[in-house]
This record gives sequence, C-alpha cells and structure tokens, in this order.
Amino acid sequence: MPADKNGDIRMNEAFTRQWDALRDEADHALRRCLPAEDTPPAVIHRAMAYSVFAGGKRLRAVLFLAVADALGWRHPERARPAAAIELIHTYSLIHDDLPAMDDDDLRRGKPTSHKVFGEAMAILAGDALLTLAFQLLSRYPDDRGYVARRLAVIEEVARAAGTPAGMVAGQVLDITAPGQATGPDRLHEIHRLKTGAMIRVSVRAAALLAGADERTLARLSEYSEALGLAFQITDDILDETASPQALGKTPGKDRQQGKLTFPRLYGLEQSRNLAGRTVADGLAALDALGGAVDTAFLADIARFVLARGH
Amino acid sequence: MPADKNGDIRMNEAFTRQWDALRDEADHALRRCLPAEDTPPAVIHRAMAYSVFAGGKRLRAVLFLAVADALGWRHPERARPAAAIELIHTYSLIHDDLPAMDDDDLRRGKPTSHKVFGEAMAILAGDALLTLAFQLLSRYPDDRGYVARRLAVIEEVARAAGTPAGMVAGQVLDITAPGQATGPDRLHEIHRLKTGAMIRVSVRAAALLAGADERTLARLSEYSEALGLAFQITDDILDETASPQALGKTPGKDRQQGKLTFPRLYGLEQSRNLAGRTVADGLAALDALGGAVDTAFLADIARFVLARGH
Repeated sequence: MPADKNGDIRMNEAFTRQWDALRDEADHALRRCLPAEDTPPAVIHRAMAYSVFAGGKRLRAVLFLAVADALGWRHPERARPAAAIELIHTYSLIHDDLPAMDDDDLRRGKPTSHKVFGEAMAILAGDALLTLAFQLLSRYPDDRGYVARRLAVIEEVARAAGTPAGMVAGQVLDITAPGQATGPDRLHEIHRLKTGAMIRVSVRAAALLAGADERTLARLSEYSEALGLAFQITDDILDETASPQALGKTPGKDRQQGKLTFPRLYGLEQSRNLAGRTVADGLAALDALGGAVDTAFLADIARFVLARGH
Repeated sequence: MPADKNGDIRMNEAFTRQWDALRDEADHALRRCLPAEDTPPAVIHRAMAYSVFAGGKRLRAVLFLAVADALGWRHPERARPAAAIELIHTYSLIHDDLPAMDDDDLRRGKPTSHKVFGEAMAILAGDALLTLAFQLLSRYPDDRGYVARRLAVIEEVARAAGTPAGMVAGQVLDITAPGQATGPDRLHEIHRLKTGAMIRVSVRAAALLAGADERTLARLSEYSEALGLAFQITDDILDETASPQALGKTPGKDRQQGKLTFPRLYGLEQSRNLAGRTVADGLAALDALGGAVDTAFLADIARFVLARGH
C-alpha cells in the first residue's frame, strides 16, 4: 500500500470500500444525533455541524465499528456510541485550534470554528459536543441488556477524555512545555494521553459493548495502544513532509511552535522505523487473538496508518 | 428572614446550620473526587481546584442533598453525584468568564481562572471539570441497584447542560442578542435554559436516584422550576442593588453589557413581586406533595432565595 508524495494512500480497493462503509455508518449516526441546524438557537447547532462534518477520516468511529465487526456485534444502534466518540474528538479539535491554544486558522483545509463563528461560539460548540457525547453514551444501545455496559463505557470514555489519565492531560503537557522537555519519555507520555487514550477507548468501548472477554479486551487494548502511537508518529512525519493541500493545514507548524515531535527527536528515518516496529507489535497482538476473531480489517487499518508516514 | 443592605441574608440559625451541613457534605465529596493538586500535570489540577473551591454557596449540591433528605435517601455515596453537578456549574462559570465571553476579572471576589492560569488553562480546566462530572455520575452510587438510575441521571444532566434544551443554549441566547430582544418571553427563555435547567436537574437527579415515583418527581420539578426562576430574578436584582463586596464582582455589569435583566424589563419593585409570586408557586408544589415528604427545608431554601432580592 504505497503512499504518493502528498501523503495520500493508494490502499487496495476492498480496504477503501470497507473503510468508507463504516465511515458512512458513523456519518449517518452523527447526522441523526446532532440537533437540526435550524433548531434555535441555530448558530450553535450550525457551529456544531460545521466542525463535525468538516471532512475527517473518522478513524475513531471506523476503529470502533471495525472492532464491532471483528467480534460479530451488529446491534442496529452500534454507530451511536461510535458517533459519541467522534463528537469528543471534534470538540477537542475546536478547542485546540482556539487562539489561546494552538491558534490555527485552518483545519482539514477549512477555516477553523472560531474563524467562522467567533471564539465564544467555538468554545460553546466544543462544550456542547462534549456534553452531547455523554448524552448519547447514556442511551445507546437503548436496550436493557446494555445498561451495565453503557456505564462502563461512559466511565472509560470520560477517563480517556479527561485528566490525569487522558486527552486533557495530554493537551496540558503539550502546551505547557513546548521545546523544554526533549526526552522520549515525555514525548511518548504526551501522545499516549493526547491522542492515544481516545484511540484506545474507541477500540475498548466497542469490545466492552460487544461483551468481549478479558483476554480479548487485553489483546485489543495492546493493538489500540500500538495503533495510537504509530498514528502519532506518522502524523508528526506528515507535518514535516506533506504538502499543505494534503495536510489541510500549514505544514511545519509543530516545529515552528517549538513542539517536541518524533522527527525532531529521532529524525525522519528512525521515526519511520519506530512506526514500523510499533505497528508490528499491534499486528502481533491481533495474531494472539487466534482464529476466533476476524482481525483482517483491523490489521489493514494498522498497515494503513503506517503507510501514511512513508 | 430579612436581608441587610449588602444582600447578605440573616437566616435563622437552624436553616444556616442545615445548609452548612449539606454544603460540607458536598465539599467533602468534591475534595475526594478531584485529582490531587500535585498529580501531574499539576497546573490543570490546581486550576480545577482553584475554581471549585472559590467559595460558592453550593446551591445545586445543597438542593440535591435536601431533596435526598426529604425523600429519606441517605446512601453513603449520595454526595458524589451532587458534587458532579457542582463541577458542571463550576465549568460553566470558568468558560462564561473568559475574555471571549463575558470577560470577567472577578468571581466571588477572587480573580477568575483565566486571570490566574491564563486562557488556555481556563478553557482546559472547564473541559476537564465537565468530563470529570460524567465520570463521577457513571460510578456513583457504586451499587448494582443504581445502574439504570445512574444512566437516567446522566442523560438528564447532559440534556440540562447542553443544547438545545439546556445551559449551553441559554448561554448562546445570552451572548448573541444582548439588548436586542426585549420581550419577557425571551428573558424567561434565557434563564430557563441558562440557570433553570441545571437547578431543575439538581432536584430531579436526587429524586431519580432516590427512586421517587412519577407524581413526586412532577411536583419536585415544579418546585425546582419556580426556584430557578426566582433565583435568577433575585440575581438580577442583586446585580443592580448590592455592594461590590457582597456581590464579589462588579455590580451593574449586566446593564453595562446591555443584557436583558428582570429589573430592566419590569423595574425593581415589579421584579420583587414576580419573585414573590414565583416562590409562592414553588411552595404550593411542595404542599401538594402532602405529609409523606418532609419539605420544610426545601421550603426554607425557596424563602431564602426570595430574601436575597429584598
């Protein structure tokens, strides 16, 4: 699965078709769960929809649904919790882009929320998406049999999104010491928290709702941790090497802001090697699940993440 | 229960003692549920604690616990969900005070979060408190018997905190059309959403967890709606009449910002009358519960809210 110079990946057609089908399933759920854009006060609902439908890959929702598929879990409402996780991801992007934070004008090639709706509305849109995510998680699947599982998922998602063990903690580390901390431990810690925790919980939430046993949950967790790390390494590589068009934002921004990145710490070649070894760890975790779980698509996702950075 | 000129209320001693006991119960739970201030990354945990312990009255937690008392619900972990509601209230104050929103430097006589920790950390502290609230609600009471009730509470709290039916929607209305909309319907709508919804859910969450029947829940909801409205009217009155010391912030700010307030719409005297009639409605809802529920303290809370504005 080779990448062209812009960081786009020419995956084989079956992979792309499967990814798109799961992304469409998530998008359909997202459209149904967001307040209609003309519901008063309309401006906030427009702002929410603007960022949610700004053209992301839906990695987290696709991962959730791919795990559900792998475990044979096809509940008709399974895309709602996947959508909730995407809402949390979107809220984090809106708040990260604010002038007080990373001060980004572009995200995925489009003006960021505060450029379109103003800072106040961007802050509120993020707050509203985070809140709506927990509302959805409390309801879906809307079946008595899922009551205890839904609570377990809410707790894990909140932990992964918050502090000290989740995304908010990672963002704090990322913005409080740019350029100061230069060790690999610090870099891994930032990414484990800032992006890793939510990727991990995307996998675990699906497994928990599907009723996976402890052993399956443990192997899938290892897979998700490897995937999250590989994703961040390739993201850092793309920030250095991809064109602005492919990136949808100004490349080299992390470096300009003095942020610690994998290429800055290890160089490009060593970063690619690290991503390769990490993905191999993730594939090994999938293999350890044995033949009872169809992990082919999950393995392809890991290879896809790796291919992005080459 | 007369008020002195600074807006402080000289309530009778038994009322004050009962309020303080419930506030202490909530404070104790808050101290236990926040990450320790030296847990890395420490700055965010200091920012969270700074605003949570900035000296609020804890009206929402006290209401929750007073309803629990009235219904005889004394679960040892009952203060955790009350604390979660206070965390959501605190997050909303931190974000409301941001320069992009109301741009307030003082809150309860102390510098606001962004003045002390900077804007980025204030945004993140708010995000983290909102997230932690749902984590707590997913766990407490940590008893199998409460599983379905916890989910119902999470959904109601998320709805009350979000949009289109909750606090975020109210804040959007409040900041998008200051001075433009001058009708009583608009004013009531703003307050029903911005402060009313969370006060209402403070009451309803306790009743839901306590296992109240539909009729009790309906009467308590009426009480909470009256209380929320009366609270907002007296808040507007205090903004016009109280000293800066009593208010803990610059008085007259709402008027300066061209915000629609009850005194601006009705005048002070008519606003006081409206608050009085509203509290009478709330007391009537409590009376309708009959002798099975001890509503004496809930009634005193309503009278206390009324006394603030006189």
